[in-house]
Amino acid sequence: MRSPVALIPELASHLVGAGGKRMRPLLTVASARLCGYTAGDDRHIKLATCVEFIHSATLLHDDVVDVSTLRRGKPSANSVWGDKASVLVGDFLFTRSFELMVDVGSLDILGVLSRASSTIAEGEVLQLVSQRDTSTPEATYLEVIKGKTAKLFAAAAEVGAMIAGCNGPERVALESFGMNLGIAFQLVDDALDYVGRQADMGKTVGDDFREGKITLPVILAFLRGGAVDREFWKRTIEKLDQRDGDLEHAQLLMERHHSVADTLERARHYGAMARDALGLFSDTPLKSALLEAVDFAIARAH
Amino acid sequence: MRSPVALIPELASHLVGAGGKRMRPLLTVASARLCGYTAGDDRHIKLATCVEFIHSATLLHDDVVDVSTLRRGKPSANSVWGDKASVLVGDFLFTRSFELMVDVGSLDILGVLSRASSTIAEGEVLQLVSQRDTSTPEATYLEVIKGKTAKLFAAAAEVGAMIAGCNGPERVALESFGMNLGIAFQLVDDALDYVGRQADMGKTVGDDFREGKITLPVILAFLRGGAVDREFWKRTIEKLDQRDGDLEHAQLLMERHHSVADTLERARHYGAMARDALGLFSDTPLKSALLEAVDFAIARAH
Repeated sequence: MRSPVALIPELASHLVGAGGKRMRPLLTVASARLCGYTAGDDRHIKLATCVEFIHSATLLHDDVVDVSTLRRGKPSANSVWGDKASVLVGDFLFTRSFELMVDVGSLDILGVLSRASSTIAEGEVLQLVSQRDTSTPEATYLEVIKGKTAKLFAAAAEVGAMIAGCNGPERVALESFGMNLGIAFQLVDDALDYVGRQADMGKTVGDDFREGKITLPVILAFLRGGAVDREFWKRTIEKLDQRDGDLEHAQLLMERHHSVADTLERARHYGAMARDALGLFSDTPLKSALLEAVDFAIARAH
Repeated sequence: MRSPVALIPELASHLVGAGGKRMRPLLTVASARLCGYTAGDDRHIKLATCVEFIHSATLLHDDVVDVSTLRRGKPSANSVWGDKASVLVGDFLFTRSFELMVDVGSLDILGVLSRASSTIAEGEVLQLVSQRDTSTPEATYLEVIKGKTAKLFAAAAEVGAMIAGCNGPERVALESFGMNLGIAFQLVDDALDYVGRQADMGKTVGDDFREGKITLPVILAFLRGGAVDREFWKRTIEKLDQRDGDLEHAQLLMERHHSVADTLERARHYGAMARDALGLFSDTPLKSALLEAVDFAIARAH
């Protein structure tokens, strides 16, 4: 994050220093070690950094796009330094990440991470165009979260295997582990947006609702509800005409239609697939750690 | 620019299809040919595309940051599809560009273009933090335009040499040619913002003034003016307190202090350095074309 332009490290450390779960870089380092990475150098750490920089860049841009004011329990960078700085420092982190990848020196790894990055951007655009459309099918929602979230989890795990020289079944298994973990993670995130406690989340409950974001809890409540319910969702989500008590009513409808509970059920399904993907690795403390990451991703909801 | 998410090709073609001078990709192709690139493949075209994608991505983000409404004589993408779409499609073009570079398969070239990209982002942030500061020294302004503009011109020319297998003095010469041409180009751009005719520019005269952007015409007028002039610049540029007739008064002060004329004089200086950088190449129609590019960049101002 170093730069002679002081605003860059200042803004970037505000975001990175606020913590976050660091799931993605953890995946890279753990996958590399699981595949027996023993080189005395720090290339796996560099790759983990690349992955977290890509993620940080998308967070900076997301918060601008979503007009968010809170991130990781602190004021979001855009609310402190403005949208312009967040867009540009995001670009800096994106491009710095590629510089760092070039240092690592593997074209195959560059291919995986550059493809993941453009898939993220594509997923974000897809999310933007389906925004506020209550008729979004679950399949489109899945495409969105695969693109904007799970693909980077997948790539993070995959490049860990690659840097360790594993390009066979281990690489495929870890890519699949990351993908499924990422989907589960985002499903839980989207559920928490309606039922989480602010103190645990570092962001505000109901943000997705206020932005008219189409997530699975909304899709299921819309599909399972009657005509009156659908009018409610169209008014609040499509027209963004929201009044006092609307968020509470949305939560009530979700409760009635089990749409948050079933979102979490879907998450458990992907979590199970993630776990099974690790089947070919023998039981080691490192494997247990990755399995715990799945449990953690899902248990956040309780 | 292809993507199943229709908004991506739609927005991107709006920008790319509007034309622009295509100076940067021209530099890549011409440099490759000047260095004897004869491979029957299209790697130099791919690299030229990468360079134009990076440029297009920064334009999309710039127009958001600068709240611009006009680009290349058409409504800017942000004014048609909104800021969010422009930020995200910009990210897509950035990352797609890296995917394409990976296809070309040279780590050295990836190094040059990724470094150029992060330098651009750094230059943009530097520009943002010096925005509206009338005491910005000319040296800082030069750093900004080297970063945000000239570095990509330099990299565009440099990677042309590299793909042709020229890593010696030709590469250094073309990098220097691109850098100096880029500086000249931006200086002229900044001069035109005060004296150009809208029909020739595809954007609005006085945009920089209205945004409080610190460019060389302002810096020179500020330095050369007396106390009353400086009050005027502080009010209009630092405080952005602008009234009817202020742009015309700014133009008058620039006329009086020759600050636009001397900005163009500086441009000619860098243009001359660009021309000299090509001295080691023998005279061919291709070299003439590159020399004409310098003339074109400077002659735009007349």
